[in-house]
Amino acid sequence: MSKIADINKNFPQWYQDVVSGAGLAEHSPVKGSMIINPYGYALWENMKDVLDGMIKQAGVQNMYFPLFIPKNFFTREEEHIEGFSPEVAWVTIGGGKELEEPLAVRPTSETIIGQYFSDHIQSYRDLPYKINQWANVVRWEMRPRLFLRTTEFLWQEGHTCHMSWEDAEQERQRALDMYKDFVSNYLAMYVIDGLKSESEKFAGADITSTIEGMMGDKKALQMGTSHNLGQNFAKVFDIQYLDEKGERKYVYQTSWGVSTRMIGGLIMAHGDDKGLTFPPNIAPVQVVIVPVLVKDISRDELEKYVQDLEKVLAEKGIRFYTDWDERNTVGWKFNEWELKGVPVRIEVGLKEMENNKITLFRRDLREKETVNKEKIKDIDNILNSVQDNMLNRHKRFTESNIKEINEYNQFREILSEDNYFIRSGWCGSRECEDKVKQDTTATVRVLPYAYNDFTKDVPQKENKNCMVCGQNGKYIAIWAKAY
Amino acid sequence: MSKIADINKNFPQWYQDVVSGAGLAEHSPVKGSMIINPYGYALWENMKDVLDGMIKQAGVQNMYFPLFIPKNFFTREEEHIEGFSPEVAWVTIGGGKELEEPLAVRPTSETIIGQYFSDHIQSYRDLPYKINQWANVVRWEMRPRLFLRTTEFLWQEGHTCHMSWEDAEQERQRALDMYKDFVSNYLAMYVIDGLKSESEKFAGADITSTIEGMMGDKKALQMGTSHNLGQNFAKVFDIQYLDEKGERKYVYQTSWGVSTRMIGGLIMAHGDDKGLTFPPNIAPVQVVIVPVLVKDISRDELEKYVQDLEKVLAEKGIRFYTDWDERNTVGWKFNEWELKGVPVRIEVGLKEMENNKITLFRRDLREKETVNKEKIKDIDNILNSVQDNMLNRHKRFTESNIKEINEYNQFREILSEDNYFIRSGWCGSRECEDKVKQDTTATVRVLPYAYNDFTKDVPQKENKNCMVCGQNGKYIAIWAKAY
Repeated sequence: MSKIADINKNFPQWYQDVVSGAGLAEHSPVKGSMIINPYGYALWENMKDVLDGMIKQAGVQNMYFPLFIPKNFFTREEEHIEGFSPEVAWVTIGGGKELEEPLAVRPTSETIIGQYFSDHIQSYRDLPYKINQWANVVRWEMRPRLFLRTTEFLWQEGHTCHMSWEDAEQERQRALDMYKDFVSNYLAMYVIDGLKSESEKFAGADITSTIEGMMGDKKALQMGTSHNLGQNFAKVFDIQYLDEKGERKYVYQTSWGVSTRMIGGLIMAHGDDKGLTFPPNIAPVQVVIVPVLVKDISRDELEKYVQDLEKVLAEKGIRFYTDWDERNTVGWKFNEWELKGVPVRIEVGLKEMENNKITLFRRDLREKETVNKEKIKDIDNILNSVQDNMLNRHKRFTESNIKEINEYNQFREILSEDNYFIRSGWCGSRECEDKVKQDTTATVRVLPYAYNDFTKDVPQKENKNCMVCGQNGKYIAIWAKAY
Repeated sequence: MSKIADINKNFPQWYQDVVSGAGLAEHSPVKGSMIINPYGYALWENMKDVLDGMIKQAGVQNMYFPLFIPKNFFTREEEHIEGFSPEVAWVTIGGGKELEEPLAVRPTSETIIGQYFSDHIQSYRDLPYKINQWANVVRWEMRPRLFLRTTEFLWQEGHTCHMSWEDAEQERQRALDMYKDFVSNYLAMYVIDGLKSESEKFAGADITSTIEGMMGDKKALQMGTSHNLGQNFAKVFDIQYLDEKGERKYVYQTSWGVSTRMIGGLIMAHGDDKGLTFPPNIAPVQVVIVPVLVKDISRDELEKYVQDLEKVLAEKGIRFYTDWDERNTVGWKFNEWELKGVPVRIEVGLKEMENNKITLFRRDLREKETVNKEKIKDIDNILNSVQDNMLNRHKRFTESNIKEINEYNQFREILSEDNYFIRSGWCGSRECEDKVKQDTTATVRVLPYAYNDFTKDVPQKENKNCMVCGQNGKYIAIWAKAY
């Protein structure tokens, strides 16, 4: 088994070690791009399947758009090109010839999809128009980190058109709620939802909303975003419809996405000094059976004993794997499957067979219990209990590391000692935001709002002054260092 | 409904008309790249789901490799770079700077995966090593045709490593058999399997095998290929393993793939003058219900009647859609759903309701029958019967258009009148092949072999001389004009 760095002493190295040690992903010879290994890709497939179902359930249809975007499309929306320009990879040679117009390798598809909407939307009857695409995108990355920051990554991007600002707002919020639902109930992660500050919003959006998760080192990771694009792209790409009175109007748009970055969040939210801990609802392997073959056991009998267990697991549709590999010791296997984050391990050896028992090991609690063999029939409940415990534990961890601070000196002091999510009043000015960033590297991660209490502005009701300038605190902000 | 060109008079225009009219795909503003519309993408998702299951069943694991391939990788295998060079798109600018080394946008991934194998394979215990990736690839296309030839397309590419030439041969054949199984049983297409001639094989392969299907205009379309790469890439990328005796040896490799091109084949094999005909096993919508709402019917009663049908379809897991849209006439709807190739249409109107009946329309036979409402319970059998009939029909069509000809003059004459698959002896020389191409534009599509009768060469047993030069006829060849 690979050696992994101490999670408490060197979190970044620990991260790198578990990602490669567990066989999730590795750096490729193409600088900034990763290779996703079978175990990591199986995880992504599970995530994708669930999310794809949720997206279709919401009446959104999948499509596929070109990888390449002509330069003149890309440069039409000013904020958009300004925001993405430094990250774009350009194709300049194709079919053996220099191209007349360079092609951007899509960093996101608002522009090419804007043109599509313009061609396809005619009447109010066509609205809302809701599509999604699963694709690879490219954003040049100077300091790559597997899953977290890679030049190429996989994602889904939803794009919708609506008749009114309010309809677009509702869709932006629906998408964010869907992500929160997915992250909570599948990734077992507690996240804080709300809006991004002006400086952190998507290039070309009116509003960006986000779900932010706390990692094991108490830094923040943006797990997914949804944007209200207003009429910005509609005006540039002339996306108009005839309303019921026959008047031409611009549509209001949203876009929303999550990516393989989520996997980085999953790893850093639940991992420990033994490696990964995957929530059962998304784990590529939910149960691993490790038969302990010793001299006094007949292989046939052990196999038969294990087959009884496998039969129950198969009938219940559990994703399981039995590790018969004779090249490795039992101890090695235990470590290996813990590193890989498999939620439940079942050990079967002489002791178990003689007493008609099995030994269950829960990865989340790291507790072992020898129980009646019959208990295998209860495996769904055990997995559910792991799932629930992981979410609750992450919620407790997050909540206990959100500090309520409204004194700037105290803020600087506490962040110089350790990482936290800091909750404070904020005036909303770029000046105060920049000052904090310069002093501490922390930024406004999210302006939280209570469920269904969303609006373009999220004014606070707590009368807190801005932590930085002491003036009128327009918002409540969560500050943190971030990935 | 869109107007479609006469299939007998202008097949290419008919193709373009049904692809866009049925909402499968459209040309994008990026020359050569297509937009896959929701109906077309749903079809691709169905195909992908089935094939992905078959691939996993064969013990192949999914992974993901980078989109970009460094130039020096790409140029290492001589035949490979020579074959692909004219089609490659090159990224020369990234992150705001000119790149020191241009990056190829992958036209296929043998090279980058070759490097991966070299890094990961150590011992004979690691073999066979079998991986697959679902990805987009780019091959510059001057004369694009939707699905058939597009600069960017979607595909899967399998890559495997083995200890011996024979093992690689078996895997090449397994992949081809898998494709044939898929195409026969899901796409309801009869195909001819066998090897490619030297001039048509994959750049860098020892052997390329193919399944070739006959389109409605009796031209050929390559539906999928599998390659025995021998040790060509292994030697270039140093993919070695220690055998049981501790000796270092090069692996033998295969690769195999099918793409969105298959969709073009599906359309052209089964379409008719009314549009598409989709086989039920893969159709995005298997059954469409068209309620016929007239004055004398209460909408409530009709809805109830339809709900009874929907309930049965839902219970059976049938993909169905009920078209209640009041903007279009019933006649328009019939045409529209025929254009979209939905296998079975159920009509329910006054006549049906009064007699407790439903009217069934089979797209493949274009026959209508009014039957007892209870017959809905038999829908699986009806769909199976459509599926079988479509395969048999395509087999009959193909077989009746394969001409046995061994006289070159006759060959030229018959191909000047119409398209056919022509079966003849061939000496195997490039000279004769080139002559035929120049004279008729037909090429060797496939050197057919009987099931399990595969070998590097497929010498004929029929003692036919070469149709072109009259000399020793080494092979039986199928000649045809091709897409």
